[in-house]
Amino acid sequence: MPTERRKHWGWGLESEQPSPAELEAAAGGLRAHLGFGREDIEQPVPLADVALAPPRVRIPAELKDIATDETYDRARFGLGRSYGDVVHGMRGEVRFPPDFVVHAWTETHVQRTLEWAAAAGVAVSPVGGGTSVVGGIEARPGPTHNGAIALALGKLDRVLELDTTSRAARIQAGASGPGLESQLHEHGLTLRFFPQSFELSTLGGWIATRAGGHFASGPTHIDDLVEAVRAVTPGAGVWASRRLPGSGAGPSPDRMLLGSEGTLGVITEAWVRVLRRPEHRRSAGVRFPTYEIGAAAVREIVQAGLWPANCRLIDPREAAFTFAGDGSHALLVLGFESAEVPVDTRMEAALAICEAHGGQWEERDAKERGSMGAWRDAFLRAPYLRDTFVAMGVLSETFETAITWDRHDAFVDDVRGTAEAVLREHCGGGTVTVRMTHAYPDGAAPYFTCLAPVERGAEVDTWAAVKHAASEALLRAGGTITHHHAVGRDHRPWYDRQRPDPFATALIAAKQAVDPAGILNPGVLVDAPPAPR
Amino acid sequence: MPTERRKHWGWGLESEQPSPAELEAAAGGLRAHLGFGREDIEQPVPLADVALAPPRVRIPAELKDIATDETYDRARFGLGRSYGDVVHGMRGEVRFPPDFVVHAWTETHVQRTLEWAAAAGVAVSPVGGGTSVVGGIEARPGPTHNGAIALALGKLDRVLELDTTSRAARIQAGASGPGLESQLHEHGLTLRFFPQSFELSTLGGWIATRAGGHFASGPTHIDDLVEAVRAVTPGAGVWASRRLPGSGAGPSPDRMLLGSEGTLGVITEAWVRVLRRPEHRRSAGVRFPTYEIGAAAVREIVQAGLWPANCRLIDPREAAFTFAGDGSHALLVLGFESAEVPVDTRMEAALAICEAHGGQWEERDAKERGSMGAWRDAFLRAPYLRDTFVAMGVLSETFETAITWDRHDAFVDDVRGTAEAVLREHCGGGTVTVRMTHAYPDGAAPYFTCLAPVERGAEVDTWAAVKHAASEALLRAGGTITHHHAVGRDHRPWYDRQRPDPFATALIAAKQAVDPAGILNPGVLVDAPPAPR
Repeated sequence: MPTERRKHWGWGLESEQPSPAELEAAAGGLRAHLGFGREDIEQPVPLADVALAPPRVRIPAELKDIATDETYDRARFGLGRSYGDVVHGMRGEVRFPPDFVVHAWTETHVQRTLEWAAAAGVAVSPVGGGTSVVGGIEARPGPTHNGAIALALGKLDRVLELDTTSRAARIQAGASGPGLESQLHEHGLTLRFFPQSFELSTLGGWIATRAGGHFASGPTHIDDLVEAVRAVTPGAGVWASRRLPGSGAGPSPDRMLLGSEGTLGVITEAWVRVLRRPEHRRSAGVRFPTYEIGAAAVREIVQAGLWPANCRLIDPREAAFTFAGDGSHALLVLGFESAEVPVDTRMEAALAICEAHGGQWEERDAKERGSMGAWRDAFLRAPYLRDTFVAMGVLSETFETAITWDRHDAFVDDVRGTAEAVLREHCGGGTVTVRMTHAYPDGAAPYFTCLAPVERGAEVDTWAAVKHAASEALLRAGGTITHHHAVGRDHRPWYDRQRPDPFATALIAAKQAVDPAGILNPGVLVDAPPAPR
Repeated sequence: MPTERRKHWGWGLESEQPSPAELEAAAGGLRAHLGFGREDIEQPVPLADVALAPPRVRIPAELKDIATDETYDRARFGLGRSYGDVVHGMRGEVRFPPDFVVHAWTETHVQRTLEWAAAAGVAVSPVGGGTSVVGGIEARPGPTHNGAIALALGKLDRVLELDTTSRAARIQAGASGPGLESQLHEHGLTLRFFPQSFELSTLGGWIATRAGGHFASGPTHIDDLVEAVRAVTPGAGVWASRRLPGSGAGPSPDRMLLGSEGTLGVITEAWVRVLRRPEHRRSAGVRFPTYEIGAAAVREIVQAGLWPANCRLIDPREAAFTFAGDGSHALLVLGFESAEVPVDTRMEAALAICEAHGGQWEERDAKERGSMGAWRDAFLRAPYLRDTFVAMGVLSETFETAITWDRHDAFVDDVRGTAEAVLREHCGGGTVTVRMTHAYPDGAAPYFTCLAPVERGAEVDTWAAVKHAASEALLRAGGTITHHHAVGRDHRPWYDRQRPDPFATALIAAKQAVDPAGILNPGVLVDAPPAPR
């Protein structure tokens, strides 16, 4: 259990927030590197100065032992971790604080909370790590609700059972990445699931949002690692599937909870597939003259069934920004790993494909630093960097999608062009860079990063304009509104256009059946129940 | 398009039905091999002698151009292909004939049919190849319906579009295995999906039932091959997902149609992932002293991430019956294949694991005959054999499941023991054999075959008793009622106990939302709408 408290806004622990002088220094370095950013650095509003709207409902007697309405909890669980959330949070603006926060550490606590909330007509936002970047955790009541609370699951953080024969583990939903990995490592096992939010996000959150891990191919989606799920619904009891390696009995119950974003039930635990820790590793950084040439090589690698663990293609400008290149070439971070068998054949086959496409590589030792190591550091540091960007007046937004190979190159051009145009219009410039985070035999997941100077006070509106334009471009060009960031409330307009209408009809009916009062995450995925007329 | 008609019952084409003398000879050979079976062989009732209940509803004017109520069509689409169906079919008993059969060859035909049926209150069973072994296609109206028709989709049989860059194809739902493969082969591509029903079943049927292919590991379920699905619902329009290699936007719409067994919509086409045809192949037959020792080797092979294409473990008795062994050893059919890269490393790693477990192998050339070839022939011939078993008074039932490795050996013993006991009780003997059809890192799918002498006239009751006992054993011991045979009506009692109750609540609500009159396959997966009181 961490003894240190997380910041109530932004990334990391309270102790990790830089001092004013450190923040100035960090911002100075970034400004020199980027070529833009303000010199007057904004310091975060301390928690003591955060004023929250008074609670609409009070903690009832039956939840007194597990609930709190302290400002810290109401602020921390009222703020997600999108760029907009960080701007608001740094300024002490918590627009949708929960009336109170329940800290559940047993499934009975979850049940008790939902029973009370359904009877009291109070909305409930289930929160794992609270790292949503899509408005997925805010405590926003629907028109029929008397208030909204957060149901924090971070204390449900144990690995409960290990089946080393089947290589599976029963883990509570609130276990964070490092928390569950350290418990598994004691037995030489790993879940091997590393989303960028790994440090703070939780198993339940990953399942609820269909999170994607850092690995580029193979079983990298949490969907494929889940063997069984257990969730509490407000109106229909416990939703618990059998532990099965495979089943063809009707539509998969687990696949309906995967991506349900807290709207159908509160996930309390899951059986997941675990692995022995890798012993065989090969990796290389491969340079390609352009992103498009690199993409052609990646396509061939995944279509050859080589299943690289890492196969991230970074465009020249993003490589330069992350100190992984000089801007003259794209970088492919290529890696293979296995616990049981050497990966040399696969690595060599992949490098042969790269060579045929004009790639030039340097192979990297796991212990050595180099373009690979620099890139990985940047990957894990990115969420921390964003807090600094906000302080120095730099708009920082990432959005991601997926597209089939036949449309990939034109799609990336189109979306990047649209994002660049909107940055020019609203910010007078900035950069849009792209990396390919996941590669499939039939397509890829491009991930875009926008960085631009932004007027102080106009950050959220500008961000909304960028997000709107980018989302329109994604949808228009045939992509998905999200490959692994989820829908929440921020992506709703485009999600609603993307999903098949009859599926929406089915999903709304399903939700109503298991959550008749519509208390779970109103507005996420589907509309909140309308006010009675 | 085949010019020959399929038999209206059992397996294969009308021209493939053996003559009385051929049937006598075939039965004689099987009797000598099995040690049981009757000498008086029953000949099938010819179509001319089949008497059907008169239609409850007549073909309406708006469907006259695409519907027929000929006896052949009503018999053929009123009979599935379970053991019970074959017994009934051979005797000319068609218990649930559709009132008429619509042959759709456009999506508009499907829409027109559903519109008419919803207005007329007539149940509709969508039928692809009609090879259901679980009572999934019978035209059984619910209490509120005025009749029941079959919607045959076999004429929607074209590959409509090929995207060779993304390796994906848009294929109509009624395309059969050989039909779609021959269209793909022209372009050097393959779907590489080979369920045992391959010859007659269809893409739409595979998606609707979450079918499993013949390959033991890797993407062998149709679920993993689907990129997008298109289906017509009776009450909510067309359910069509985007072509995406991956998406994290809400619960997967495709995964809700996968396994929906014709209850949510009629699948008309899908984008599926295709492959180049394999060029690198290695295969071997590995002998193990027992099934359990072989299972331990298989577990190690799949947990090492070697992803064999074939990894079927056949117990000693089944190996003997299929001429793949002498009964003294279990046989592992092990094979690797790839279009792009040699498979030697993986094959050698797998054989090293087998050796460590005491396995002895003979490697097989693709063109050579041997234990591998004999086994494969038996696999594809099995459905034909069953018709002969019925004629000679042999009960022939297969059931399949999946279980995690920790419970696998005890589970197989328990289930086999139960099935043997019920055969002793009802048939005075018989054999229960097992093979492992699919292997996963966390478990396996055992497949049981029961063969026993059965009293003439008592076949269906005896079969029901065996099925009941086996299904109880599967559920009790923690397995799934079906790994790839689907639920239909026959598996309903156990499916209802297996699925999470809140999921059932959600599914029933979802169905009601897209099929308000409950006309699609009433009784399959969920209950038909009850009669008004």
